[in-house]
Parts: sequence; structure tokens; C-alpha cells
Amino acid sequence: MFVIDSLIKQLSPSFIHSVQQVIDLKTKPQGSLGVLEGLASKVAHIQHSLSPMLKQPCLIIFAADHGIADHGVSLFPKAVTEQMVLNFLAGGAAINCFSRQHHLELNIVNAGVCADFNIIDDKFINTPIAKGTHNFLVTEAMTDIQCQQALNRGADIVTQKFNAGCNVIGFGEMGIANTTSAAAIMAALLNLSGKECAGRGTGVDDKGVKFKAQVIEQAIELHQLRDATVLQILQKVGGFEIVMMVGAMLKAAELSMLVLVDGFICSIAALAASKMNDNFIDYTQFCHQSNEQAHQLVLDTLGVQPLLNLGLRLGEGSGVAVAYPLIVSAVTFFNEMASFSDAGVSESD
Amino acid sequence: MFVIDSLIKQLSPSFIHSVQQVIDLKTKPQGSLGVLEGLASKVAHIQHSLSPMLKQPCLIIFAADHGIADHGVSLFPKAVTEQMVLNFLAGGAAINCFSRQHHLELNIVNAGVCADFNIIDDKFINTPIAKGTHNFLVTEAMTDIQCQQALNRGADIVTQKFNAGCNVIGFGEMGIANTTSAAAIMAALLNLSGKECAGRGTGVDDKGVKFKAQVIEQAIELHQLRDATVLQILQKVGGFEIVMMVGAMLKAAELSMLVLVDGFICSIAALAASKMNDNFIDYTQFCHQSNEQAHQLVLDTLGVQPLLNLGLRLGEGSGVAVAYPLIVSAVTFFNEMASFSDAGVSESD
Repeated sequence: MFVIDSLIKQLSPSFIHSVQQVIDLKTKPQGSLGVLEGLASKVAHIQHSLSPMLKQPCLIIFAADHGIADHGVSLFPKAVTEQMVLNFLAGGAAINCFSRQHHLELNIVNAGVCADFNIIDDKFINTPIAKGTHNFLVTEAMTDIQCQQALNRGADIVTQKFNAGCNVIGFGEMGIANTTSAAAIMAALLNLSGKECAGRGTGVDDKGVKFKAQVIEQAIELHQLRDATVLQILQKVGGFEIVMMVGAMLKAAELSMLVLVDGFICSIAALAASKMNDNFIDYTQFCHQSNEQAHQLVLDTLGVQPLLNLGLRLGEGSGVAVAYPLIVSAVTFFNEMASFSDAGVSESD
Repeated sequence: MFVIDSLIKQLSPSFIHSVQQVIDLKTKPQGSLGVLEGLASKVAHIQHSLSPMLKQPCLIIFAADHGIADHGVSLFPKAVTEQMVLNFLAGGAAINCFSRQHHLELNIVNAGVCADFNIIDDKFINTPIAKGTHNFLVTEAMTDIQCQQALNRGADIVTQKFNAGCNVIGFGEMGIANTTSAAAIMAALLNLSGKECAGRGTGVDDKGVKFKAQVIEQAIELHQLRDATVLQILQKVGGFEIVMMVGAMLKAAELSMLVLVDGFICSIAALAASKMNDNFIDYTQFCHQSNEQAHQLVLDTLGVQPLLNLGLRLGEGSGVAVAYPLIVSAVTFFNEMASFSDAGVSESD
């Protein structure tokens, strides 16, 4: 079983004093670097090091199609998932621009797109579970074997990155209709209504949001999700990209990597991971507050605060990529700033 | 007179359609890059170009001392201004780390520190108006001639940067007690009470904030600031670094440069500049929302929204530096992202 494999270390509470002392002796009023201080402290803790380093940062986009797209929950046709994967591979999407800017190694994973890709590309990981999930208003989105496969493949991909020297990894996603799948998972995990979890996705109107809420309620009823386990929820209304992200995130934390979480859909994967392991959340940094209305609720539930709030609603890991330089800034000040004694600067009274 | 020299072009409203069209044809749902879209549009407008470029970005820290520091408004002794200038020049401050990270050329201007600097350093511009201002509870902070000198020197420094090829310029400041000077300017410019404008600065307690508010009220009374012009306000309660920033910001806008504004004190300089020229504000991008309580009020008055809210309260231009990669991201997606037709991606219904 996947879950039993995931042994995530509790961060050492005794290390906190040493880390805080490094920060407080820097030439600045105490606390004046705000959330960058907490971020530096988090990286130092995860790495259990007073000289933390960000090595081979990478961003992985998991892409898959969703049977529920056939139900008209998105503004865009299903074909766009394949088209966007091709756009990512051609280098023309927003996430390509931002990854190049910040030297993030970008990988695209075909987790289950409705397409045949005959492409050889270093950044393409072609490992589909199936050509899209089933429509979860008709039957279960995937089998339990497929769900386990998706968790394990996500974990394997992260292990490969770790073995190549990576210690900071961001996640993004692409999949037409995946906000509906994510919202259904959220409603089931947190025992909320469809209305509390449905949002605009890539831009549906009020009527569209109401429709998504109804779809979620129907799915909860059909699959009896109110009494289901996390794995059952993922299997019955999840998507291959979402489930792979859950496996990938848990493995990254197990390997003491910093896990960078993008917007709403990635946050739902992180929520599921946090329900599977109590220590997981300490390894995460949430990067962007989505406009998706339910995102705030997820963040509050997890007790986390994203770095940015730029009104992005694109997915693709775009929030991770544009926030990444802030992670670098945090580690940089921790390692490079002079202390009061180094610089001969007077401390406050 | 300085003000008459400042001829800031109104941005062309007819150009907006062309800029928006470029953005809307990118392979993403419309508006899904949030504030990055507005930012890209702003840079394109300022440069009047559909291929905007950020050239030789630089960050200038203006440093000066304040007579009002003798009145006990700050946690730190006045000597820290000089010490921090030396720390900036030695490369050990937070802003050095962040400037190096983002390849921002950093200059430190001695606008009027209480110190003799016998330093030759490419990044040091040693052009003090005097060794600190006078205590504005005793007399005017500076003479009107000094105020004009400070405006002109700020403008001259920017002109030199422009002539060297720079088209995007950020401003930061260092000066013990300068939140008190800035808050006094704000109270006078916006006809607010001392209490509405005083804040914690580098970390004073409730009693300290109350004391700063009283100091501001006394200064407004003593100098009859309720009926004063912008220049009179700057002269009577300003600081050399703040006044130089006003001159620098106005000149940068006149030269069609993008003006990056840091936290509270820089925002007060921008507020003063906006009172001197109606077109100025269109050339600015506010970078960081300060914890300083009055900052929100300034931002609301100007109708602007900063990019980041990271709880920084350091000054030094730190908010500009850590926000800079977002400016780059905006220009990068505008120039580099594929359009729907380039990439063969279907548009929404």
C-alpha cells in the first residue's frame, strides 16, 4: 500500500533556536523581513542546516483529461488539454516563459491525456494511466488499481528528480475540467457543500458555478463520499494528474524536499496529502492565492498563507514559478547578509 | 523653479487597444495572468511599444539623517544611518543580497548623513545637502534653497542613469527617524491627524507611536502646515533623502522611465510627486504593502495596489528588489508567450 510507504520525518523542534538566532543577528530590525524570515527558517528546518541551499529546482506539470468535461463544466473543449501539452513542449506557454526566467527545470507529465503523443522530448514524461478518467456522474473516475498506479508514478517521478540532485520541487497541472474534480474532492474531504467548493475555473459565469456545485452534490450522493476514505475519494472523483500530484508531494516530503504548491487544484492535492500524513504540511510552501473562491477555505483549513496574491487563475504551476525568486531571496538573505557584529552596526535599544 | 521643469507626458489612451489585443491573444484564458497583465500593459504604455524592454534596471538608495531623531522617535540611534550606508557599501545588507540576486545595479546616495565619508566606490554618490536636517520641532528641517537643491540633485542622478541606458528605476531609503518625517508630510499633504499617519517604524511600541503622533501634531502647528504648499511641507518637515526622491521620481517619469516605489517612506515621496504633477502616478509601480498602518491610506488615496504584501518593514528598497522579478515576468510573457494561432490552441466558447 502506498500510504504505509510514506514516512515523513517530523521536523526537529530543537533546531528552531539555532535557526532563529542566525536570523535575528542579521543587520536589520528583528522581524523586518516579514514572511521571508519564516520561509528561510522553513528551508533551514527541512534541510536541518544553517547553510540551506536550493539545488536543481524543478517544476513538474501533471496533465490529464477528465470524463466530467463531457458534462459541460468548462468553457474550453477537452482537446485543449492535449493542445496545451503541445504548447508546453513547444515552449510557448506562460509557464515556459516563467520557468526560463527563473532557471526552473520544467517537466511535463502525461498522466492521462486523451491523446497519443509520439514525441521524444527530454522534458516530456509520457506515463499515462489511461486516456482520461471516466465521467464521475456515470461511474467511478478510475479503478482502485489505477489510483494506486497514479500515486506510485507520481512518487517515482519525484524520486528520479531527487536522485538527480533536486531538493526543491514545484507542482502544476493542466486538465480541462479539473477544478470540478478538485472541488468534488474538497467537498468530500472537508464535508462541505458543492456550493462552498465550486468556483469559476478558467472563467465560467454564475450559472456555470451553480451547475458545477450541482454536479459535485450529485457525485457525493452517487459515490457515498461522505463516509469515504481519502483514497476512495481520490479514486471516485479524482483525476490522474491530481492523484499523481498527491503521490509526488508525499514522496517529496519523505525525501526532505521543499514542496512548492501552486493554486487551487494543487492545494487540493496537498490537502489530500495532509490527510494521509500529519507531518506533510511542514514541507510545503503555498505560492499563490487563487481567485477561485474556495481556495481561501482550503488555505484556512491547512493554516497556511501563500506568498503571492496576483489574481492569477491559470494553473500550469504559474504561481509557483513567479513566486520562486522569493524562495531564493529568503535563502539568500539567510546565507549572505552580514550580522551586526560583522558589519559594526548598533543594535536597537 | 523645479516644478515647471517637470513635463510628464500623458500616456496615450489610443494605444490601449493594441496592447490589450496582444495580451488577449496569448494562449491562456483572458485575464488569467491577473495583475501581471496590467503590469505588462503599463510598461508597454510607458514605452509606447509592443515590444517593451527593461534596460539596465537600477535601484537607488537615498540616505540622510533627521534632526527629529534627537527627539527619541526611533528605536535606533542616529549613528545607524552612517553604519548602514557603510554596510550597503560593504555589500552586507539585505538590499545587497536582493540586488545581486536580480542583477539590479545598486547606488547609494549620501543625501545628507551626519558623517564624513572618505570613500571612493563606484556605487556611492556622495552629494550631501548638509549633515542632517534640523529638528523640525525647533525650526524648519531645511531652507528653501536646500529643498530646491535636493530636488535638483535627485533629478540629476536620474538623468545620469537615463543617459547610461536605464529605463526602469527603483527607489529606496535609509534614515533613522524618517518614518516620522514621512508621516508628518503625509498628515500635511492629506490633511490628516498625527494619529492617522504615525506608525511603528522599525518597531516602536504603542507608547512610541502615540509620541510620534504628538510630534507630528506639534510640527503641523508650529509650521502652519495646514495652509502650506507641497514644497513648503517638504522643506519644513521633510528629509534630504525624501526630497531627493521626489525630484528623482518626477524626473524619471519625465524621461518615460518606469518608477518602482518601495514601502511607506517612498510612497510618501511618490504622494508628494503626484501632488506636483497629475500624470506622474501613471509611471509608477508600487511594489510592497508595508505593515506601517498609514501605508494603506496612502495607497488608497493614490488608487494604487502594490505587488507584494510580505510583511517587510525594512526600507532600503527591499520591497522593490524582491518584487522586481514580477516586473520581468510581466514583460516576458508579453514578449515571449505564443498566441492561440501560433500554438494551434482552441479559444474558449
